[in-house]
Amino acid sequence: MSHGKQFTLFTHTLGPNGWKVAFVMAELGLTYESIFLDFSKGEHKAPAHTKYNPNGRIPTIIDHHNDDFVVWESAAIVTYLVEKYDTEHKISVTDPKEKIIQLQWLSFQISGQGPYYGQAVWFQKFHPEKFPSAIERYQKETYRVLGVLESVLSKQEWLVGGKATIADISFVPWNTGVVPQILKDYNGFDFEKDFPAVSAWHEKIMARPAIKEVWAQEQALNQ
Amino acid sequence: MSHGKQFTLFTHTLGPNGWKVAFVMAELGLTYESIFLDFSKGEHKAPAHTKYNPNGRIPTIIDHHNDDFVVWESAAIVTYLVEKYDTEHKISVTDPKEKIIQLQWLSFQISGQGPYYGQAVWFQKFHPEKFPSAIERYQKETYRVLGVLESVLSKQEWLVGGKATIADISFVPWNTGVVPQILKDYNGFDFEKDFPAVSAWHEKIMARPAIKEVWAQEQALNQ
Repeated sequence: MSHGKQFTLFTHTLGPNGWKVAFVMAELGLTYESIFLDFSKGEHKAPAHTKYNPNGRIPTIIDHHNDDFVVWESAAIVTYLVEKYDTEHKISVTDPKEKIIQLQWLSFQISGQGPYYGQAVWFQKFHPEKFPSAIERYQKETYRVLGVLESVLSKQEWLVGGKATIADISFVPWNTGVVPQILKDYNGFDFEKDFPAVSAWHEKIMARPAIKEVWAQEQALNQ
Repeated sequence: MSHGKQFTLFTHTLGPNGWKVAFVMAELGLTYESIFLDFSKGEHKAPAHTKYNPNGRIPTIIDHHNDDFVVWESAAIVTYLVEKYDTEHKISVTDPKEKIIQLQWLSFQISGQGPYYGQAVWFQKFHPEKFPSAIERYQKETYRVLGVLESVLSKQEWLVGGKATIADISFVPWNTGVVPQILKDYNGFDFEKDFPAVSAWHEKIMARPAIKEVWAQEQALNQ
């Protein structure tokens, strides 16, 4: 690649998992060139992308400072980034047990938050038929996931290690969709009232300078 | 706990992610006591379980040989088990890059395979209404995931490191559901014909003595 940045990041303007990776790169001061794939043209499923990522989904990274090492799956990418480049442990933990708990929360985010929030949006916006009971199923699960986070964050400030880590940061891009989209018409949902600890935690992460700057790009791209 | 085994494993007789953990413990010769939670009685959401796992889903482990360390989320659990107890690297890799690729596949399994296969089963068996287009959505995604695996396993024997690892083993319990349930009526689906490399890989893992023994327990419990 000739863009001169350390990383190439294959992503999508609306993809929460792509923004998650951008957040972490920005926090670590790493340089990256975003390639926004056009899903309507099938660019994510085209050989120029699938030669790196056989799953044909985003994000995918290439690290040009490490023999063009390729990683896909956002939890693996952010783990790679902190293990290799967060030498001062700004947003990651070091203790072996805490590293497992960090991975536990990353795993919950990619398996328990992302897919279910994603299905809610699918049945709300994209499915060719309207199935209120399917929408309700995923709204209910979204609400439940926020409750799990609340049960923990009402007792401690961060998910692991007493500081903001990749575990906390990973939940943010998906949680931005809760108020304007997923739960906007769900039983009088009120983020701050229903989940005070989660909404305060979310706002604290969103206020971090690196996150704020990246999110402003998201907003500009998707206005 | 007074059972005398190293681990307590909170699980469910039909839960693929619980069997995944049992597979890995058996491969490593670790002793564990399974506590099969009765979901119909809400045992997974009861304090006796949620005091360990606020998410109220299985699996959850307690390591009684490591200060009763608690981990939930199957990918974090199997990673913990190999990092701490697979000192001979029987089913795990050691090279830093390979460890990230191992995590990449674990991540794909828990975020891309499990939730989507799970939604297929949900809409086939449990949803109160019948939505053929929802069932088809998840059958199609299941078929696509098998295709992703086929594209890789038709060129290499194992997902990472040239040997069977936790990455390969993690896909097995979910793939056992493809033939009898998820894709049984899907466009003349034939596992061996449609995905020869994946089905051969699946059978090779199922034939491993430790896996075979654990799976026989699953079969006996669910007859």
